[in-house]
Amino acid sequence: MDLNFKKISIIGLGLIGTSILHAIKDKKEDELVTFAYDINPEHRKIVLQMKIATFVCEDIKDAVREADLVILAVPVGSMKTVANLIAPFLKKNTVVTDTGSTKGSVVNDVYPYMPDNVYFIPSHPLAGTEYSGPKSGFSSLFKNRYWLIVYDKKTYETKKLINFFQTLGSFVEIVNTEYHDKILAITSHLPHLIAYTIVGTASDLETDLKNDVIKFSASGFRDFTRIASSDPIMWRDVFLNNSDAVLEMLQRFNEDLSDLQKAIRKKDGVKLHSFFSRTRSIRKKIIDAGQI
Amino acid sequence: MDLNFKKISIIGLGLIGTSILHAIKDKKEDELVTFAYDINPEHRKIVLQMKIATFVCEDIKDAVREADLVILAVPVGSMKTVANLIAPFLKKNTVVTDTGSTKGSVVNDVYPYMPDNVYFIPSHPLAGTEYSGPKSGFSSLFKNRYWLIVYDKKTYETKKLINFFQTLGSFVEIVNTEYHDKILAITSHLPHLIAYTIVGTASDLETDLKNDVIKFSASGFRDFTRIASSDPIMWRDVFLNNSDAVLEMLQRFNEDLSDLQKAIRKKDGVKLHSFFSRTRSIRKKIIDAGQI
Repeated sequence: MDLNFKKISIIGLGLIGTSILHAIKDKKEDELVTFAYDINPEHRKIVLQMKIATFVCEDIKDAVREADLVILAVPVGSMKTVANLIAPFLKKNTVVTDTGSTKGSVVNDVYPYMPDNVYFIPSHPLAGTEYSGPKSGFSSLFKNRYWLIVYDKKTYETKKLINFFQTLGSFVEIVNTEYHDKILAITSHLPHLIAYTIVGTASDLETDLKNDVIKFSASGFRDFTRIASSDPIMWRDVFLNNSDAVLEMLQRFNEDLSDLQKAIRKKDGVKLHSFFSRTRSIRKKIIDAGQI
Repeated sequence: MDLNFKKISIIGLGLIGTSILHAIKDKKEDELVTFAYDINPEHRKIVLQMKIATFVCEDIKDAVREADLVILAVPVGSMKTVANLIAPFLKKNTVVTDTGSTKGSVVNDVYPYMPDNVYFIPSHPLAGTEYSGPKSGFSSLFKNRYWLIVYDKKTYETKKLINFFQTLGSFVEIVNTEYHDKILAITSHLPHLIAYTIVGTASDLETDLKNDVIKFSASGFRDFTRIASSDPIMWRDVFLNNSDAVLEMLQRFNEDLSDLQKAIRKKDGVKLHSFFSRTRSIRKKIIDAGQI
């Protein structure tokens, strides 16, 4: 059973797309051919200059027509348009996957366009940085990170895809779509929303105060500004496409924050100390799980 | 004009206190003597074994009676008790400073106990990690970090203290007490509160979901758990002692969060994109200010 793809198409040349190209190139498999496409001509030009793809295509159909694996690494808000564009040109038995952070929306947006003889297996690498664009990619981005697949059929094609993600260094797990969107709402989407908010709050302060906030930015705030410097289009699309799960988690968060707010107002040191002690143990578990 | 202290007392042997000891030891100034004390006998024992202080004292009064500089590196909730304990044993002309993260409370708690012939000059190094305890200190903690002084008199003693902080690698600036507490509320205290909250929210999820939150913890959440693993006593004290400024900033934050919540509910992509783009520029300014 040959589990290797021979012709891989990457649609979207941002952090994720170019990291996949770097990682594939690092494997030095001469028989493997990559096709790269981005709607932005500037991004195509940069990838061409970096020489990380076998072919950089000027037309999206040329990027997919020969591929046995097509990876959609575009913002989730563009999945529908891209699926519609590529569908007529997909080869029989091609595996199509994506890297979007909201899986319910991608399933809804992409499935209806996929021909019957094509395997659409949605996925999501839990990997990223605050940088974006074609120059931000690097080959080890997926190393020791989970790459989730939301697809319940254990077919030959699923095995091929799992094998491919493992080749890039990832641990692969299969989860259900709705569950994925809930987990991501609390571990990724809500933290980003909060970070964007607090940096926004700081940037609305009076000028003197704002300048000194930047000058004296302490460690907590610095981390938040890093998160809040992530790609605005990607994140707009995430919140538009996982709004139910995000709003649910946000409601829980708001209740907890109100509790702590009250404890501060009432100077309830016992409650604050007990809350702050509890959260420490979660950190320890993450370190133990090797995900630092 | 000799700007060097000869006998330095460190009260409180946590991250900050032991980092100061490491940094002083690294200077290899043979004439400089350090006295170390912590209320916890275990911490004293560890510092004794690490050999980073000239003397580890079993009694707090022995740690201060010869010192020409006393540094209080205890949680801000303990400042009052410590000031009361050491006051009778302070030498004439001794400079006393502290490293607390809330300056209004420290001024209120310590000043009344200080003898007239002692110089109390409150300060705060904008430096830290999520680790705590006597083993967490390291000599470069203060390097290229701001060390703020809240004291408006430019005396010989202030100059000595500034010189000392600069020797540890810090940039020193003088700010006003209330202004300090506002800046720290938004750059440090509120981010910590938010991080504690979101990690708490996650730890209240149903068991399956919670386990997978840990397993699949993505980059946003990981950063929050790091912040939320900071010392619970230190942070309890911060919120109890800077409650006005924290509650004011929290109110602004809540207003902004409600706005974004509404934008998500209404699927207002234009608003989300514009907000997320604005916060990116703040990050750039912090990088330009060299505080990453």
